[in-house]
Amino acid sequence: MTSYQHILLAVDFSEQCLEIGFRAKDLSERYHAKLSIVHVADNLPIIDGMDGQIMPFDFDLNNELMQLAKQHLAKVAAKLDIAEENQWLVIGSPKLEIVNLAEANNVDLIVVGSHGRHGLALLLGSTANGILHHAQCDVMAVRIKEN
Amino acid sequence: MTSYQHILLAVDFSEQCLEIGFRAKDLSERYHAKLSIVHVADNLPIIDGMDGQIMPFDFDLNNELMQLAKQHLAKVAAKLDIAEENQWLVIGSPKLEIVNLAEANNVDLIVVGSHGRHGLALLLGSTANGILHHAQCDVMAVRIKEN
Repeated sequence: MTSYQHILLAVDFSEQCLEIGFRAKDLSERYHAKLSIVHVADNLPIIDGMDGQIMPFDFDLNNELMQLAKQHLAKVAAKLDIAEENQWLVIGSPKLEIVNLAEANNVDLIVVGSHGRHGLALLLGSTANGILHHAQCDVMAVRIKEN
Repeated sequence: MTSYQHILLAVDFSEQCLEIGFRAKDLSERYHAKLSIVHVADNLPIIDGMDGQIMPFDFDLNNELMQLAKQHLAKVAAKLDIAEENQWLVIGSPKLEIVNLAEANNVDLIVVGSHGRHGLALLLGSTANGILHHAQCDVMAVRIKEN
């Protein structure tokens, strides 16, 4: 059995993402492993808050949202001492992008939040579930306590 | 964030269970956590290998199978230096019994094998999946490489 060499933390910018982050950081320290972070932005239709209409695909707006996500990712990464070259921002299906990124970068442990089966959690939890099914490496699901 | 205090290793006696066991042991050492082990025996109808008939419920045979399982569990536990008082043998639904045992014993991390989505693995993998959904604590899914 080899020690973990490269741990990938997957974050969704929920209020508990730092809690999961600190667990991933703690694991990386105990295993002397490299720690990377990824956020996957779902490519969903954008709903205008004023009148509920679905806006057409807008490159500039998408660009702006990605800039905001990048800033948010950088903030979380800074709190976990993760260097810029180990920060990933990807658009697509969370479970597939996370699993693909892990394979392409020889990640041997993915750390992800797990929300269980209740309410909104059923939707959120499906990422952890999908990763568990598709990942070729170990997966640590950090249980998020519901408020 | 607290350090893990009590890690529960769930084993199914597959040929890879020691591999998962060594990962759990390694985690327990790095976290200075107590390590317990559980095997859940499914209470399935027993099929006679000679003519394929389903045998009636047989208390003595069940007892004998449990004795064999206990011996097997003790062997695995010995290789992982897990004392007898931290070995659990339970009959029932694996995911429910593992989750209940974890809650009753303040387990903060469950370690279980994960077989992914392919072939027989779909069936085997469902335990990891069920634990992920139902556990109130963190879950480490150790990916089993298919032969």
